Amino acid sequence: MERLRSTEIATHVGECVQVAGWLHAVRRLGGLTFAVVRDGWGMVQVVAEAPEVCATLAGTGNESIVAVTGVVTAAPQAPGGVEVQATALDVRVPVAEPPPVALHKRALGASLATQLDHAVVLNRHPQRRAVLRLAAGAMQGFRATLTAREFTEIQSPKIVASATESGANVFRLDYFGRPAFLAQSPQFYKQIMVGVFERVFEVGPVFRAEPHDTTRHLNEYVSLDAEMGFITDHFTIMALLRDVLAGILAHLQAHQAADLALLGLTLPDVPATIPHIAFTEAQELIWHQHGVDVRGEPDLSPQDERWLGAWAREEFSSDFLYVTGYPMRKRPFYTHPDPARTAVSNSFDLLFRGIELVSGGQRLHRYEDYLAALAAAHLPTAPFADYLAAFRYGMPPHGGFGLGLERLIAQLVGLPSVKLAALFPRDLTRLTP
Amino acid sequence: MERLRSTEIATHVGECVQVAGWLHAVRRLGGLTFAVVRDGWGMVQVVAEAPEVCATLAGTGNESIVAVTGVVTAAPQAPGGVEVQATALDVRVPVAEPPPVALHKRALGASLATQLDHAVVLNRHPQRRAVLRLAAGAMQGFRATLTAREFTEIQSPKIVASATESGANVFRLDYFGRPAFLAQSPQFYKQIMVGVFERVFEVGPVFRAEPHDTTRHLNEYVSLDAEMGFITDHFTIMALLRDVLAGILAHLQAHQAADLALLGLTLPDVPATIPHIAFTEAQELIWHQHGVDVRGEPDLSPQDERWLGAWAREEFSSDFLYVTGYPMRKRPFYTHPDPARTAVSNSFDLLFRGIELVSGGQRLHRYEDYLAALAAAHLPTAPFADYLAAFRYGMPPHGGFGLGLERLIAQLVGLPSVKLAALFPRDLTRLTP
Repeated sequence: MERLRSTEIATHVGECVQVAGWLHAVRRLGGLTFAVVRDGWGMVQVVAEAPEVCATLAGTGNESIVAVTGVVTAAPQAPGGVEVQATALDVRVPVAEPPPVALHKRALGASLATQLDHAVVLNRHPQRRAVLRLAAGAMQGFRATLTAREFTEIQSPKIVASATESGANVFRLDYFGRPAFLAQSPQFYKQIMVGVFERVFEVGPVFRAEPHDTTRHLNEYVSLDAEMGFITDHFTIMALLRDVLAGILAHLQAHQAADLALLGLTLPDVPATIPHIAFTEAQELIWHQHGVDVRGEPDLSPQDERWLGAWAREEFSSDFLYVTGYPMRKRPFYTHPDPARTAVSNSFDLLFRGIELVSGGQRLHRYEDYLAALAAAHLPTAPFADYLAAFRYGMPPHGGFGLGLERLIAQLVGLPSVKLAALFPRDLTRLTP
Repeated sequence: MERLRSTEIATHVGECVQVAGWLHAVRRLGGLTFAVVRDGWGMVQVVAEAPEVCATLAGTGNESIVAVTGVVTAAPQAPGGVEVQATALDVRVPVAEPPPVALHKRALGASLATQLDHAVVLNRHPQRRAVLRLAAGAMQGFRATLTAREFTEIQSPKIVASATESGANVFRLDYFGRPAFLAQSPQFYKQIMVGVFERVFEVGPVFRAEPHDTTRHLNEYVSLDAEMGFITDHFTIMALLRDVLAGILAHLQAHQAADLALLGLTLPDVPATIPHIAFTEAQELIWHQHGVDVRGEPDLSPQDERWLGAWAREEFSSDFLYVTGYPMRKRPFYTHPDPARTAVSNSFDLLFRGIELVSGGQRLHRYEDYLAALAAAHLPTAPFADYLAAFRYGMPPHGGFGLGLERLIAQLVGLPSVKLAALFPRDLTRLTP
């Protein structure tokens, strides 16, 4: 008999079917045994009355691989509104030992450290895997939105000869006797590839050797990057990013309603135009609203971002807020200045519920501007020779953004740590599983 | 005026439009100046008669960023069947210096080393970028085929605590004072995630510190990986892979006809069932056909693979051939044996035009089989503790495959080296661009 997936049986009421998966839970109730079989997509309630099936279930450990044959019947109280009345049970791979974390309980009671230590097994928990499946859906939504806008996907090298952003937070490795680094971002390569395809995106790992352990940072994360040529300025990119976010959320709404329901999530609306505030105005606002004088600071603190997030919610009913025009001195050397005020950058951050989710902006595109910017930053040109070749031989005005996948999912779901949005997070102390 | 993409103008004959891009080529013919403007998607022929436009074109270097305004007219000899009769030309970013490789010539005359050295600029060459865009399309086709079959995408960690396959060909790095490695494949993680989603795939970089420099190897490449639970044996995976290959090629055919035409490519047919030959039969065949006795060898050589590829072409008119049942002693410890002949593995390689393109097979799934396999291979269990937890707590029969993206594209296009299928290849000597 062909096995059906858990998500397929609701349309087979009255038929004899086979389901197979992990034995998620078993309990006795009167003369009946109820079991839940979990497969890759969902769960099936199984009810057994036959003594030999009940006896087998009683002697089979959770997480054993089982196949159940039986008739699908309507059962309004069961998940999906149906259950399988088991006539036969085949234990294909028995498991004797209980798993190190209770997968069959609705709530994940374990501490963050325990959850991460046991991620190999814990990722099987229905809530946990709904979170991880949202991350998969977000990647799909990102790609679908950009592909529809004629962007081409790239996969840039992760082993690089020099650090992209700064020499500090970079992992070093030995490359056949030569020093090399893990890419902190695909920044240089996506800009170079604007010279080829004009519009490019990448979904891939980035590596940050930041020696601090917070709920907002990972040392390896998945970056959703886009870069686009022939823009007017950073507002072109902000409009693109708005549509990308709307596309991701629309994809999740359309394809992952079950995961959203399991997590009790309502997705936020993305305004047709995301409100924006200039960096210096944001600092004035904080001074007036909270009496804290951050004017003159070169960047926003996490507290500043939370205040601004609350203000955007209050003022515009928006979970999203752009902060534009960060001071040039705190942005990377390739940042394009505001032509009218050269100490101010054509850059932005996107705050999502008071946390920085995306950085982006317009980049320099003239070769001579790069030479001047490197000189001003006291950086030598030699390590950047290949990157500079792109600009030496013609590049249009361009810009882009980088969005951290795990941070998006953590904020969307309301996770206490970004580490819980990764399959197997890497942090200061954690190199396994 | 809104700029149109090169691929859009054919439907605007008679209208005044603007196109913008890189000045690809300029030549004078009588009193006219012909220019080609290249944008991210194609090329537009521009013809100028006005003296000021002709003079500007004469003084503008190739690869300058230009915007041309003019009327679209039918021109059967021009690319796309239309040209733009220029009334105005705006040089937005002038380039004085000719590029280091001749982008405007149809054929790429440069040596492999020169091509790779100048990849930043050379990737703009129409033929080269058609190749790179096929790689993007192959990733899309891969994902679309597997998503339609209810596979979930994962992104597994690239920084790992221990080597996957063997300790030899692995890049080492310093992880906050601890030794760590770059993942040679997502093998362990994709198996673990079969325990969560049953069907998973990943598109991502893998790293091999192989100290040899060939036309078939890269030290960093893009691996298209899939893994699936509840299989019968490796033939389930071979049928899946057949459909994945057919899905990739159908995607390229449907969406990238222009790239295929530019490269003069006809895509191969994927037979409804890809022919297969057992490993020992393949060795017998080579002995009978070529008089070379490789019987008893534990693996096939590149020459053996070429002979088998030619035989599949001759015998089955197929560019694809499965070789099944490799000896267990040459396959990794997690390989599932043939239950009837335990020295033979339930594994396969897929040869594409005589070169190994994919390795795959059924994996062990019982915890006790892993313990026995590690003991037989004289490997300690401690470094595999997290991996083993997946099997300790219930895993179904499963298997999968890994397909090298650059190798697929190199074989499909007929490139002399797999390095030409990468955006920016990494090899023994090459860490830039």
